[in-house]
Amino acid sequence: MSRTQLFEQIQHKKSFLCVGLDTDIKKIPTFLLKHDDPVFSFNKDIVDATVNQAIAYKPNTAFYEANGAIGWKSLEKSIDYIKSNYPEVMVIADAKRADIGNTSAAYARAFFDHLQVDALTVAPYMGEDSVRPFLNYKNKWLVLLALTSNKGSSDFQQLKTDVGFLFETVIQKASSWGTPDQLMFVVGATQLSLIERVRSLIPEHFLLVPGIGSQGGDLMTVALQGMNEQCGLIVNASRSIIYASNGEDYAEAASDEAKKLQQQMEDLLSAKQLI
Amino acid sequence: MSRTQLFEQIQHKKSFLCVGLDTDIKKIPTFLLKHDDPVFSFNKDIVDATVNQAIAYKPNTAFYEANGAIGWKSLEKSIDYIKSNYPEVMVIADAKRADIGNTSAAYARAFFDHLQVDALTVAPYMGEDSVRPFLNYKNKWLVLLALTSNKGSSDFQQLKTDVGFLFETVIQKASSWGTPDQLMFVVGATQLSLIERVRSLIPEHFLLVPGIGSQGGDLMTVALQGMNEQCGLIVNASRSIIYASNGEDYAEAASDEAKKLQQQMEDLLSAKQLI
Repeated sequence: MSRTQLFEQIQHKKSFLCVGLDTDIKKIPTFLLKHDDPVFSFNKDIVDATVNQAIAYKPNTAFYEANGAIGWKSLEKSIDYIKSNYPEVMVIADAKRADIGNTSAAYARAFFDHLQVDALTVAPYMGEDSVRPFLNYKNKWLVLLALTSNKGSSDFQQLKTDVGFLFETVIQKASSWGTPDQLMFVVGATQLSLIERVRSLIPEHFLLVPGIGSQGGDLMTVALQGMNEQCGLIVNASRSIIYASNGEDYAEAASDEAKKLQQQMEDLLSAKQLI
Repeated sequence: MSRTQLFEQIQHKKSFLCVGLDTDIKKIPTFLLKHDDPVFSFNKDIVDATVNQAIAYKPNTAFYEANGAIGWKSLEKSIDYIKSNYPEVMVIADAKRADIGNTSAAYARAFFDHLQVDALTVAPYMGEDSVRPFLNYKNKWLVLLALTSNKGSSDFQQLKTDVGFLFETVIQKASSWGTPDQLMFVVGATQLSLIERVRSLIPEHFLLVPGIGSQGGDLMTVALQGMNEQCGLIVNASRSIIYASNGEDYAEAASDEAKKLQQQMEDLLSAKQLI
């Protein structure tokens, strides 16, 4: 998916919402457990119920791997369902991979060739040669961790180095490895004081912003500080949408939560004159 | 597996060799491709041929994920084969995971509960709360990336911060999160000038050392600088062992390579009076 296609979808749906498919078999409604593949059934219903509001879905691999090979099958089926039925929607595998070059190339094959996702989150700690193999795919996106939404982001990401905070060095170096047409950065919605600083370093790049909803980030502040001329934001909510209800109405409840966020996003896009 | 059990195995086998099961279906002997599960067949033969020299096996998840759910099945079977037949041997999943706490807990379930490995490599970039969930398992090991073997380790790991190089800060902070009975660090064999510096920070911890063999690290220098009173080193070789031959004799060739390294390790353990 190209940057132009991504922005067109944002304008069409009046939304920059990503729904995180952090589907934990221990948290989904129990009546689904009698299905052949409860995780897939859940994801299918959530996607169908939210796809008019969501421009992207982001399955986090941890929750699938917790079920082993069966979980990977659920992941494959879920991604295939989205790509077959809603090809305009971006699928981001939130896997936070990276290894030495030879091994990162195998991860790139796993996610871009085999699973056929549009984007993959990658961890920067191992440096350039661990990141480069993910940039060799046309119209695929590498989403690099910069400033994450959790408390531990202060441990290393916000250490001062010779050349600014570590997360700033990561952004500066990495933005010379790939273009804004293939590279995004993760910046947590809980890092409100720093989003403006990120935006001044990379005015054009899309930011993937987790931390809205259960983690407490504020959508309006994120948008005011982070939006650019092509929106430039993909804001993710996971638990607050997919676990909005634990009853038979879980898909409807997820849809209601997604609509609330979409409405706020429409107002923000409109205020910025992007729609 | 406890630290005492690990050291006993090192003394018994006169070796601190880990064999990296970076099993790429594109690189294994082609006649194996007619097997039901070629990757499992290959791993089984490699393990049987090297287990007298290897105290640990380290499958890297990238090469399994490149085959999707089928690859995860091969990974499950390979780990189960090792644990069932050679329960004294350590299995290290080289997966370099980490995420926000709630998600790291799912990865911990995936690797420690489901796959039942003894140890898991973890990336430190997201800080303490992304690392802690892996420390909640008795006799399981968290192997934290500190100073990796690749060229890109200079991009961020060797940046100077207020409190030393980034990798030193990682080691210092993380060594307060877990004890030497549950925490190891990855230090590449290609970082010869820095291993002594790592050892002075953490005299007791085991180091997992990749980079011997195909990556060019020197075993003797690593041992002289990194060994402690319980050996304190697990040295990994992957490609130089498992791809020693591409013919019908691949297991025998792997055994020969493992024996060469074991002999060098025996000499080093003996010189240090540990056996």
